[in-house]
Amino acid sequence: ETMEVTLKTEVEAGASGFSVKGGGNEGIFIKKVLKESPASKIFSLREGDQLLSATIFFDNIKYEDALKILQYSEPYRVQFSLKRKIAVQEDLEHSTARHKKERIGQVDVL
Amino acid sequence: ETMEVTLKTEVEAGASGFSVKGGGNEGIFIKKVLKESPASKIFSLREGDQLLSATIFFDNIKYEDALKILQYSEPYRVQFSLKRKIAVQEDLEHSTARHKKERIGQVDVL
Repeated sequence: ETMEVTLKTEVEAGASGFSVKGGGNEGIFIKKVLKESPASKIFSLREGDQLLSATIFFDNIKYEDALKILQYSEPYRVQFSLKRKIAVQEDLEHSTARHKKERIGQVDVL
Repeated sequence: ETMEVTLKTEVEAGASGFSVKGGGNEGIFIKKVLKESPASKIFSLREGDQLLSATIFFDNIKYEDALKILQYSEPYRVQFSLKRKIAVQEDLEHSTARHKKERIGQVDVL
């Protein structure tokens, strides 16, 4: 008797040492994981796991590689995480300098 | 005066109509967004946005496209979302049939 779990791997670099199979309606599955590889030791992938999604972090990525990833993923469902500079509204002028300073920085608007 | 926000786009298919620039230490930035394109209308991307990460969902993806995405992202930081079948432990045999049934299904182990 089995049960299904969904899980997320740690965010790590260098997911090498595995192959996939499937595609289309069937889904993408881990076909083979090389022993002692990062896929096995760091990501703990196992043969038979279904890959539901992959999040690729763009820090220190080569332009060409980012471009290819974006091009190949274009037809599919994607979600981007963005950093955006936005203008601080005029009405903040009436607040104190100290208050203004606190408003600057990173804010999550999920 | 500006502030920075981080935000996530909706999960949608077909992120077309934009170009990127940058790479390496600098980061990847949205260079141009075509008006009336999905990138503009559906994803609300704006020129100057920094792409921190992209999550690609593998439902209904072609094998070849999934393979390319995994190959190009291999050197970089990634996170996978997986579905895995696991064996239900023997000690569950002592529980009631109804209880067993409740254990079967999707469980998040984030």
